Amino acid sequence: MAGNSFGTLFRLTTFGESHGTALGGVIDGCPAGLELDTGKIQYELDRRKPGQSAIVTQRKEPDEFRILSGVFEGKTTGVPIGFVIENTNQKSHDYSHIKDSYRPSHADYVYDRKYGFRDYRGGGRSSARETACRVVGGAIARQLLRDISIEAYVSSVGDIFLEKPYQELDLSGREDNPVRCPDSKVAARMEEYIKEIRKQGDTVGGTVTCVIRNVPIGLGEPVFDKLHADLGKAMLSINAVKGFEYGSGFCGAKMKGSAHNDLYNPDGSTKTNLSGGIQGGISNGMDIYFRVAFKPVATIMQSQPTIDRDGNTVEMQGKGRHDPCVVPRAVPIVEAMAALVLADHYLINRNAKL
Amino acid sequence: MAGNSFGTLFRLTTFGESHGTALGGVIDGCPAGLELDTGKIQYELDRRKPGQSAIVTQRKEPDEFRILSGVFEGKTTGVPIGFVIENTNQKSHDYSHIKDSYRPSHADYVYDRKYGFRDYRGGGRSSARETACRVVGGAIARQLLRDISIEAYVSSVGDIFLEKPYQELDLSGREDNPVRCPDSKVAARMEEYIKEIRKQGDTVGGTVTCVIRNVPIGLGEPVFDKLHADLGKAMLSINAVKGFEYGSGFCGAKMKGSAHNDLYNPDGSTKTNLSGGIQGGISNGMDIYFRVAFKPVATIMQSQPTIDRDGNTVEMQGKGRHDPCVVPRAVPIVEAMAALVLADHYLINRNAKL
Amino acid sequence: MAGNSFGTLFRLTTFGESHGTALGGVIDGCPAGLELDTGKIQYELDRRKPGQSAIVTQRKEPDEFRILSGVFEGKTTGVPIGFVIENTNQKSHDYSHIKDSYRPSHADYVYDRKYGFRDYRGGGRSSARETACRVVGGAIARQLLRDISIEAYVSSVGDIFLEKPYQELDLSGREDNPVRCPDSKVAARMEEYIKEIRKQGDTVGGTVTCVIRNVPIGLGEPVFDKLHADLGKAMLSINAVKGFEYGSGFCGAKMKGSAHNDLYNPDGSTKTNLSGGIQGGISNGMDIYFRVAFKPVATIMQSQPTIDRDGNTVEMQGKGRHDPCVVPRAVPIVEAMAALVLADHYLINRNAKL
Amino acid sequence: MAGNSFGTLFRLTTFGESHGTALGGVIDGCPAGLELDTGKIQYELDRRKPGQSAIVTQRKEPDEFRILSGVFEGKTTGVPIGFVIENTNQKSHDYSHIKDSYRPSHADYVYDRKYGFRDYRGGGRSSARETACRVVGGAIARQLLRDISIEAYVSSVGDIFLEKPYQELDLSGREDNPVRCPDSKVAARMEEYIKEIRKQGDTVGGTVTCVIRNVPIGLGEPVFDKLHADLGKAMLSINAVKGFEYGSGFCGAKMKGSAHNDLYNPDGSTKTNLSGGIQGGISNGMDIYFRVAFKPVATIMQSQPTIDRDGNTVEMQGKGRHDPCVVPRAVPIVEAMAALVLADHYLINRNAKL
Repeated sequence: MAGNSFGTLFRLTTFGESHGTALGGVIDGCPAGLELDTGKIQYELDRRKPGQSAIVTQRKEPDEFRILSGVFEGKTTGVPIGFVIENTNQKSHDYSHIKDSYRPSHADYVYDRKYGFRDYRGGGRSSARETACRVVGGAIARQLLRDISIEAYVSSVGDIFLEKPYQELDLSGREDNPVRCPDSKVAARMEEYIKEIRKQGDTVGGTVTCVIRNVPIGLGEPVFDKLHADLGKAMLSINAVKGFEYGSGFCGAKMKGSAHNDLYNPDGSTKTNLSGGIQGGISNGMDIYFRVAFKPVATIMQSQPTIDRDGNTVEMQGKGRHDPCVVPRAVPIVEAMAALVLADHYLINRNAKL
Repeated sequence: MAGNSFGTLFRLTTFGESHGTALGGVIDGCPAGLELDTGKIQYELDRRKPGQSAIVTQRKEPDEFRILSGVFEGKTTGVPIGFVIENTNQKSHDYSHIKDSYRPSHADYVYDRKYGFRDYRGGGRSSARETACRVVGGAIARQLLRDISIEAYVSSVGDIFLEKPYQELDLSGREDNPVRCPDSKVAARMEEYIKEIRKQGDTVGGTVTCVIRNVPIGLGEPVFDKLHADLGKAMLSINAVKGFEYGSGFCGAKMKGSAHNDLYNPDGSTKTNLSGGIQGGISNGMDIYFRVAFKPVATIMQSQPTIDRDGNTVEMQGKGRHDPCVVPRAVPIVEAMAALVLADHYLINRNAKL
Repeated sequence: MAGNSFGTLFRLTTFGESHGTALGGVIDGCPAGLELDTGKIQYELDRRKPGQSAIVTQRKEPDEFRILSGVFEGKTTGVPIGFVIENTNQKSHDYSHIKDSYRPSHADYVYDRKYGFRDYRGGGRSSARETACRVVGGAIARQLLRDISIEAYVSSVGDIFLEKPYQELDLSGREDNPVRCPDSKVAARMEEYIKEIRKQGDTVGGTVTCVIRNVPIGLGEPVFDKLHADLGKAMLSINAVKGFEYGSGFCGAKMKGSAHNDLYNPDGSTKTNLSGGIQGGISNGMDIYFRVAFKPVATIMQSQPTIDRDGNTVEMQGKGRHDPCVVPRAVPIVEAMAALVLADHYLINRNAKL
Repeated sequence: MAGNSFGTLFRLTTFGESHGTALGGVIDGCPAGLELDTGKIQYELDRRKPGQSAIVTQRKEPDEFRILSGVFEGKTTGVPIGFVIENTNQKSHDYSHIKDSYRPSHADYVYDRKYGFRDYRGGGRSSARETACRVVGGAIARQLLRDISIEAYVSSVGDIFLEKPYQELDLSGREDNPVRCPDSKVAARMEEYIKEIRKQGDTVGGTVTCVIRNVPIGLGEPVFDKLHADLGKAMLSINAVKGFEYGSGFCGAKMKGSAHNDLYNPDGSTKTNLSGGIQGGISNGMDIYFRVAFKPVATIMQSQPTIDRDGNTVEMQGKGRHDPCVVPRAVPIVEAMAALVLADHYLINRNAKL
C-alpha cells in the first residue's frame, strides 16, 4: 500500500533505506513563487545529523541534499520538488549478526513476517535515517510558513525534567548546548546523565516539547483532520515515539471544567491556554504546544538473548555507533513534522470560505 | 477541504450537525460477503447514547440508524453502505445565548473566524453527536475483524485511577456499571465522584484505556502510516481528547533501553510487551494497548464571563443537559475508532506481499 | 476499495442502488458562505428524471432530494452536505428472469464474478440511477462556479448528426425539445428516429457535446491531473460512455501542426481554438468543448439468448420501461460531471501561487 | 496542489523538468517479493528515447535510470522504489526566443498565468520528457502483472490508417519498423509520410491503439473508478492526447442495441467484443482495446507569429530537434500508463471480497 506520503495539499513522499544507494523525497504542492533558502535546509539537516556532538552517535554521514527539480532561479515553480541525499558512508560491513536474527524491540521480526524478507542492512527502511528526508521537507514547509515560529526542545531525559513552563524559557538558547534543552543548568545534568548511560552501554528515553507561535486562526478541519490529530499522527510517525499530548494533555484529564476552561479576552485571545492553541480541532491564534515521548533506543551495547529466523535462541551483542539518547537529534525532526502539518493545513484552510 | 473521511481502503465519511435534519455516513470499501448483524450495530449505538444511566446527559436521543444501501439479503455487496440517524429530539429551542456569544473552550469562536458564520444550534458540526456515525462505522468494521477483540474501559476519572494493569482485569465486566470501569470498587468511587461533580454544576476529565487482542502480525505501514500513528490520529480526532500513549507511553520515556526492550520467546512472541504490540509501526501479534486522555466537558452549569461577536464581555450561564464526565460514553467511541483503523490496515496489509 | 468518491477538494461520495431503500451522497469541501438555491438543484434532477417526455423511459421516479446537513439559513457552512433521494417507486416486482441469468452487455456477470453475488434488482449499483446523485452534486458545484456556463446538448443520435459547430447554435434552445438538440429541425429528425427505434424494441446510441465558457485561466494541473484528463475520466465514468474527445479530438490526429496550432491575439486569447480551451492540461480562458460517445442502451425489448449462473443457455426477453436512447437524459449528467471537475480544479488552483 | 501522483495502491509520483538537474519518481505500493528485471525497464526506456530512428527527434538523451531504493538482492522489498534519470544533455543553450514569448499551442502562456512565472528551458515541467518516468513506473507495473500482455501500436499517421482490426495483426511485428505499425506495408507509407512532413518543417498527428490480453475478470470499480475511466484519464494525461475511445468507441454511438450487445458463450466469454473487455467498468476477461488520438507536435520548423509577455506581436522561428510525429515514441508511453492502471486495479481488486 502506498503509505510513504504525508500531507494532502503540501505532500511529502519519501524513499530510501539506511544503507541503500540514496534516500530522497518529493514535495508536491508547494505553491509557486517561494524564494528558497537552501542554506536553511542544510542547517536543519545539520541539526539532525550524526556526529554533531559528543552525546550522539559518532557515525559519519554528511547528509548533503541535492534538489533535482521544482526550483528555478531560486524560486519554487509550483511543480514537484525532488531531492536526494546520497548514502556515502553506508559501506555494507558485516551484518551477519542481524541478517538472520531479530534485534529486540526493533522492526526486524515484523518486517520479515509482513514482507517475507527484509533489507537487513542497518535496519533498511525502518531506520530513523529516513527522517533526514522529513527534515528537508519540513525545512521547505517552514519557509512557506514565514512568520509562524516552530521551536522544539528537550524537556526531559530519563528522570531529569525541565520543570519550567515554556513561557519562562528563552527557547533560542536550546541550540547552545548539545542536549537542546533551553535551561543550561538542566541541560548540563542531562548531558552528564547521557554520558553516564553511554558508559553503561545502555540508552535512555526522553521527551521533546514543541511550541508554535503566530499561528493564524482557522487552521485545522473540524472532524477527522483536527489540527492536533494531524500533529499527533505526525509525531507518532517518528521512530521511537510512544506518546503525544497537547495543551493540558494527560494532566487535563484530572481537572474540573471550571478550572480547565480558557476564558476570553475582548480581542478573542484567551486568559489561560489549557486548550493549547486549538479548539474543536481548529487553531485559535494562541500558542500551540505539545509534548512527545520517545522510548530509549533499542540498540544497546550489551549482550541480549534473542531468536533467529528459525526460532533458535541466540545471543546478540550490540554493535555499531548508536545514539545513547535520541531526543537531542529528535528536536529538528519534531519541528520538521510540525512544519509539514501546518503548511498542509495552511493551504487547506485557504478554501474554507468562498 | 474534504476532511470528513477517515481511512483509506475501509473509509468512513460522515455528515450531519447536532441539530440538523439528520446525521449519517457512508462506509466505502467494505468487502462483499460480510454477514451484517444490525443488532450489534444498534447495541454499540446504545452504549454511546444519552440517557443510558444517571451519570450521563439526560437528553433523549433514540439514535436509531437506518441502512440505506450496500447490504442485500443480509450481506454486504461490496458497494458503499450509506446510513442515516435522524435527529428527532433536536427541537431548536432557544439558542440566543450562544448565537452571538462564544462558549469558553468550545469551538464557537474558531468556527466563526474560519467560516465567517456558524450553525450555532447545539454546537452544529462541532458537537460530539457526530461520533454516533463513527460508532456505526466502527460496529461494521468490527464485524469485518471477527476474531480481533477490542475492549476499552474507563481507567481514570479526575484523580481516581484504576491502578491495576489490564492483564489483571476482566474487561467484560466494564459493562456492569455505568462508569464502564471493569473494577467494580473503583467504579463505585468514580460514580460517586461524578455525581458529586454534577451537583457542583461542574465537569471532570478522565482517561480511557483500550486493549486489542488477537491482532494478526503485519498490520501497519512502516513510515508515516504506522499503526499506532493512525490509532493516535483516530483517538485525537475524538472530541475532548488531549493525549494518546501506547505501550510504555510517557513512562517509557523515563526508562533505560536495557529495561525497555522486549525479549523474544522462540515463537516470536515477547516476554514483556512495553512495545504495546507494535514494533516499527507494525503489529507483532502481542496485545495492543493504549490510553487516551479526555479533558473535562467545557459546558458547565455555572456562570462564566465570555465575549460576544463584537468583543463585548457578557455573562454566560450553562444550559441544557450535558455530561458531567464524558469518559463512560467515550468508551464505545474509542472502540469504534480503533476498529476503523484496524479494518483499514487489515485491508491494506493484504497487498504487502505478492 | 473505496472508489465511490469523485474529486479531491470538492468531493462527491455517492451511495445507493437502483432498488434499495434510498440513494444519496455527501459533498465534502464546499466552501462556507455559498447561498444555495435548492430550486436549481431540483430543476437539474427534473432534467434527468424518467418520464419527462415521450422518448424516454416511462418509469415514475419523483427523484426528490432532501438535504440533511451542511446548509444553515440558506447558506453552506463549510461542513459536509449530506443528501438523500428516497426510492419510492422501486417495488421489487419480479426479477426472476435476471436473478440467475446475465443480461448481455450489462454488468450482471462481472458483478457476480467480482463480488461473489449481486443485488440483482434493477441492476443494483450498476444502474444509471446512481447518476441522480451526481446531478445533485453537480448542481451545487455549478452554483459555486457562478459565471462559468456549462451547456451540453445532443449532437448525434445514431447516424443523425448535428453538423453545425457550437458557435453557430443557440444552446439555450436545447431545452425546447425532448431530444435536447439545439437545432429544432435536426431535433425533430432525431425524435422521429428514436420513436421508430422504440417501436422496433431496439435502442440506439448517440453523442453529447458540452461547451464551457468563461473559464478562468489556470485551472488544471500539469501532469496527471490535467483538466481534460479529469474531464475525460468524469465522462467515461458515466454509464454507457465509450469515448471522449476535446478540442480537435480524433480529427486533430489527422492534421498538420501548421494547421492545428492556435495563434495568439495580443490579449492572450487565440484566433482559433483547436486546443479546446486547454493547453498543457491547463485552461487558457478560451471555450472548453468536448464530445462524449454513448453506446446504445443494452436492454432491448427483444428476445436474446444468454447464459445463466451455471453456464446454461437461456432465452431472455427484455422487460420493464427503459430508454430507447440515453442521450437526452445524459445531457444534465454530462453537465453535472463537468461542474464537479471544474469546482474541484477551481479550489485546487487557489493554491497554485503564494 | 499535490497532483503529480498517479494511482491509489500502486502509485507513481514523478518529478523533474526537461532541463533541470534530473527527473525521477517514486513507486509506492509495489508488493514485496517481485523479482525485478532492470534490463526490461531499460528496454522500455530505450523504446521511448530520442534518436532511436531517423523519423524521431535527433536529440541525444541517454535516459539511463538508477534505482535508489526499494529493491534488495534483486527483489522488491515492499517499500518505495525511488529512481532518477539524470539530465546529461540538457545544456541550457539559448532560450531567449521562448523566455519571454509564448510558443503557439504550447503551455508557456498558461504556466505564466497560473504560476506567475515559469522554467522556460525546454518547456520545463510541461515537456514530454516527464513521460520517461512513467515508462520506468510502467515497466515495473508490467512485471507485477506477469501474464497480462499489453501491446500498443501506431494505427494511424495523418490520413494513413491501418485498417485491419488488431485480431488480424501480429502485434509483435510492431517493433520491426521505426513507426511501430505492425503492418509493414502501411508502416512504410507512414514512414515515408513522416519524412515528407519533416522536410516541410511541419508535424503531423496520429493514433495509437492498445490491446490488453489475459486480463483477470473483476478489475475496475463500478462507479467513478471504472477501469476504462481510469484508462481514459491515464491516456489523456499523456502530452498531446486529444481523445480516447475503447471497445466500439465513437462508432458504437451510431449503432443499435440489437447489433451492439455482446452475447455470451457458455463459459462467460462473449461472441463479439464491442464492449472492449469491460462491462459496467469491470473487466470481463475479454481483450481490452482502446484507441488514443495525438495531435500534431506544436513545435514546427517554420516561422509563426505569436505574442510576448507584454502582448507584443513577435515572430517565432521553431528551433531545436523535435519529433515530426509523436506516435512512434508514444507507443511505450501508452503501454506504460496502461500497465500502471492495471497494476493499481489488480491490487485494489484483491479486497473486493472477504
